[in-house]
Amino acid sequence: MTLIESLQALLGDRLATSDAMRAQYGKGESYGEVMPPDAVAFPLSTQEVSRIAALCHQHRTPMIASGAGTSLEGHITAPMGGIAINLSRMDAIVEVNDEDLDVLVQAGVTREQLNHELRDRGLFFPIDPGANASLGGMAATRASGTNAVRYGTMAQNVLGLTVVQPDGTIIHTGGRARKSAAGYDLTRLYVGSEGTLGIITEVRLRLYGIPEAMAAAACAFDDLAGAVATVTQLIQLGVLVARVEFLDEVQVRACNAYSGLSLPEKPHLFLEFHGTPAATEEQAATARELAQDNGGSDFAWATSTEDRNRLWKARHNAYYAAVALRPGAKVWSSDVCVPVSRLPEVVLATRADIDASDLTAPIVGHVGDGNFHVLFSYLSEEEREQAEQVYARMIARTLAAGGTCTGEHGIGLVKRKHLLEEHGADAIATMRAVKAALDPLGLMNPGKIFL
Amino acid sequence: MTLIESLQALLGDRLATSDAMRAQYGKGESYGEVMPPDAVAFPLSTQEVSRIAALCHQHRTPMIASGAGTSLEGHITAPMGGIAINLSRMDAIVEVNDEDLDVLVQAGVTREQLNHELRDRGLFFPIDPGANASLGGMAATRASGTNAVRYGTMAQNVLGLTVVQPDGTIIHTGGRARKSAAGYDLTRLYVGSEGTLGIITEVRLRLYGIPEAMAAAACAFDDLAGAVATVTQLIQLGVLVARVEFLDEVQVRACNAYSGLSLPEKPHLFLEFHGTPAATEEQAATARELAQDNGGSDFAWATSTEDRNRLWKARHNAYYAAVALRPGAKVWSSDVCVPVSRLPEVVLATRADIDASDLTAPIVGHVGDGNFHVLFSYLSEEEREQAEQVYARMIARTLAAGGTCTGEHGIGLVKRKHLLEEHGADAIATMRAVKAALDPLGLMNPGKIFL
Repeated sequence: MTLIESLQALLGDRLATSDAMRAQYGKGESYGEVMPPDAVAFPLSTQEVSRIAALCHQHRTPMIASGAGTSLEGHITAPMGGIAINLSRMDAIVEVNDEDLDVLVQAGVTREQLNHELRDRGLFFPIDPGANASLGGMAATRASGTNAVRYGTMAQNVLGLTVVQPDGTIIHTGGRARKSAAGYDLTRLYVGSEGTLGIITEVRLRLYGIPEAMAAAACAFDDLAGAVATVTQLIQLGVLVARVEFLDEVQVRACNAYSGLSLPEKPHLFLEFHGTPAATEEQAATARELAQDNGGSDFAWATSTEDRNRLWKARHNAYYAAVALRPGAKVWSSDVCVPVSRLPEVVLATRADIDASDLTAPIVGHVGDGNFHVLFSYLSEEEREQAEQVYARMIARTLAAGGTCTGEHGIGLVKRKHLLEEHGADAIATMRAVKAALDPLGLMNPGKIFL
Repeated sequence: MTLIESLQALLGDRLATSDAMRAQYGKGESYGEVMPPDAVAFPLSTQEVSRIAALCHQHRTPMIASGAGTSLEGHITAPMGGIAINLSRMDAIVEVNDEDLDVLVQAGVTREQLNHELRDRGLFFPIDPGANASLGGMAATRASGTNAVRYGTMAQNVLGLTVVQPDGTIIHTGGRARKSAAGYDLTRLYVGSEGTLGIITEVRLRLYGIPEAMAAAACAFDDLAGAVATVTQLIQLGVLVARVEFLDEVQVRACNAYSGLSLPEKPHLFLEFHGTPAATEEQAATARELAQDNGGSDFAWATSTEDRNRLWKARHNAYYAAVALRPGAKVWSSDVCVPVSRLPEVVLATRADIDASDLTAPIVGHVGDGNFHVLFSYLSEEEREQAEQVYARMIARTLAAGGTCTGEHGIGLVKRKHLLEEHGADAIATMRAVKAALDPLGLMNPGKIFL
């Protein structure tokens, strides 16, 4: 039997081979080019993923795992063909432990689905990339979002994984204990490995109690430096700000138009505070004072759940707002992260570089982490080329400032060259040695991470 | 030239070969047996470690890295001989970035040395194993301590590493950005690898601002269940307790005698709160209320720096207090970690098991993490054997409860069997594949972690 025949025997109509399906599962949300797999498998269990992997392994065929398909760096394309293994139908919340604040989910559960399920228990999971990504995909790309400044990224919030290895072997990493010093940290090795070492089928996550009080506010600044100084001082004072997001004047204009806000077209911070009512109020007062010292406006408060949701929905829709800014344009969301003290110079130089070009490109960022995105919008090949030049200079500037070429999107196809620039040949050789050890036939998401 | 001659040529009198030095560097603080290396090298720089490694590699000779020598599980013994590479003279604080709250230190800097240096800058590094360990050793064993419930362990607080590989190649992992999704997380792979993959020579750490206010308190309970319920409820409410430590009645007695405290001989929680004065007071009020609901006594406050220091010094000296409890006895500090909800049953069953034996063994723990230590004291081989039986049952109970065989001490020689029981043969095979990829000749700290 051919591999396709064997997979059909295993999966029936849960194996798709039509051109339309192959194209749909051969691209992510931002990266342009479609590189279709030979077929798309929709497993329902870890056991089934294991059987698919064993068959692919037997036939020496690439495996490309995916979830909600919201990847931005070409992670889920199939440049060498092979079988796309889409885990979106593995969407069961297996076990919630209220008392220990942990949950076990199948990899296809999305962050919104999880939080919807948790709400009545008074619990939540904080990591929130803009898209409604799957938790398996978020683990595989080491995703973060607006809450990372307080709650960390997927690296800090995954307690354990179930992983299917290239030959179909199933392993469990980590566990339910809050910490462990037992052997190599395989959990953190698979988190961020982008499906190149194994397929994550289950994720055990830390949860948090929904704070008693949450208050959000928007604050306008005349310039970025004042906004960043506010944030640096907040963090040094130990104020546990839950979210602190930067939107430049172009992004504010885009959000006003797309999400019906009416903010002044100036650089903004969106802030959120979590805690008891008194603690939240105290944190907010400190932030307001620091903002004023640094040239910020009065806070525009969003304390009702509706107002808070509107503000953060606008922030989460920054990408779609950038898309809507120029009808017909494609938007390429880039992602760099620098030490916070270097953020003003790197963002300002990048803004100046954009302004000296013909490009439209909002800047938005998780400023508490030093992480920012330029949303390059382009209508033509010429604009795309200009964007690539600005982008290359931004990466060079980021690395020179001691930063990383990706704070949260991952490497995929797009940043392989920059990974090498950032870490150097010897560190990359170490990563490649790990890859060769765990995937000796090179079947797991080939062509990604490494040039 | 022999290896020893080559090392002498490189290091001069910084290579020790006397029996006394070899014995001193062939054991840790708790593990009994001495297994001396052939020589002890004291490098002063990463370059020198690289040259030592290249020589050992050329001579196919084991390398055993160490720092302050406070390891508890036999990590730094040399069961196969070889060269002990002691990094304690690499004790420079290379670079402090106040604004970004990070620091680069050589591996031999101790946690107390670092905090002494940082104090005048208003900064601190929170991870505090009982001993004054080196930061390289703490990274290598994935150490934690009393602050982990709020600030995390070494896994969350190392931003990057310089690592010397078995053949002398130097790599840099991680970086100064607060988060990164750039490739495999080599930092987290080396953190907790116990010198079996490479030698950590430099560590970049996250720092924190010293809180405006800190308040500590001791609270007595009639039983463990009330103490644990207090902690579980605190964490669920999102109260960011900085420290919350459990001491059973035997440990309290030991601390009273050793550290001049006068606490009632009952199970205790030691708590600490960090923040603004108002926030600290609010957190403490919540904790006091919960403690009272769960049968706790009034809080005995330690708000002055002197009183706080006395309380935490007593806690940090728990091991030495246990040693002093029975003149001439040796103390074996064990270390398990379970989901917090399972802590009462696992600790109570272990306490009952100890009480049914002839042993003296205080229990002390980082209760917010579910991590506890039994300090087995023994005067004879018979007592040691009894302790091993109680210990084996405690490990079995821990694994049955979904816990880990070590929360913070690491595997070393002692827990190799339990690592296998905890993670299963397929996960261990994955760890071994990583080991074989990065240390193909098996020269790095051989005999540790794996059976």
